[in-house]
Amino acid sequence: MNKIEHIGIAVKDLEAANRTYKAVLGSKNYKTETVESEGVITSFFKIGESKIELLAGTNANSPVSKFIEKRGEGIHHIAFHVSDIKAEIERLKEEGFRLLNETPKPGADYKQVAFMHPKDANGVLIELCQEKE
Amino acid sequence: MNKIEHIGIAVKDLEAANRTYKAVLGSKNYKTETVESEGVITSFFKIGESKIELLAGTNANSPVSKFIEKRGEGIHHIAFHVSDIKAEIERLKEEGFRLLNETPKPGADYKQVAFMHPKDANGVLIELCQEKE
Repeated sequence: MNKIEHIGIAVKDLEAANRTYKAVLGSKNYKTETVESEGVITSFFKIGESKIELLAGTNANSPVSKFIEKRGEGIHHIAFHVSDIKAEIERLKEEGFRLLNETPKPGADYKQVAFMHPKDANGVLIELCQEKE
Repeated sequence: MNKIEHIGIAVKDLEAANRTYKAVLGSKNYKTETVESEGVITSFFKIGESKIELLAGTNANSPVSKFIEKRGEGIHHIAFHVSDIKAEIERLKEEGFRLLNETPKPGADYKQVAFMHPKDANGVLIELCQEKE
């Protein structure tokens, strides 16, 4: 794990949240991207070497919409940048962690990603992130 | 806001969580510190320019213990590093945000800190952090 790649925050209204986080961070979002396979629209802000990723569901059945329905808006996941996602998945499996994705899948922002099971990490949903090859 | 200073994760058992996050991050915690005024024991891990801060309550009435009782273990707050915490508090108040601390208070890791109201930031508890003068 090299650094915090981003923190994902689940929000109901992406445009309103863009205004809020522009005011908090003092800078504008630099990208909006829809990930159809996840039913999510994302908006990215730079902060140091990391990013804040706002997430809004595109429909009521998307995982982000269900998260908000159950727990309310808030932090959804932490993503760590890794240099070799396949090796990192194997390392974590050997350490006894359960992966929600045993092979990397496409994510937003030109990344391949895999999620760890939050029950194995004190309730934290952890994403591994590597640039697409 | 310069960078993500740390992500705070509320845990029940600090020693067990230290083992978990050592395995996740691939590095050991470098500091354990008790903040009596907050009823919390903290444990810090380095990750890039940021830190992971594990938080365990020292008693059942501490804010972290109450958080876990209500929501379970998980991400408790995001802390952003700022260069001038007093100026940043004033800027955020002018933007219309409510601060839980209008004057900075002592935090762990040689910091002075102030928290923003999570209702004004999509359910995210945001901490401002500056080195002690």
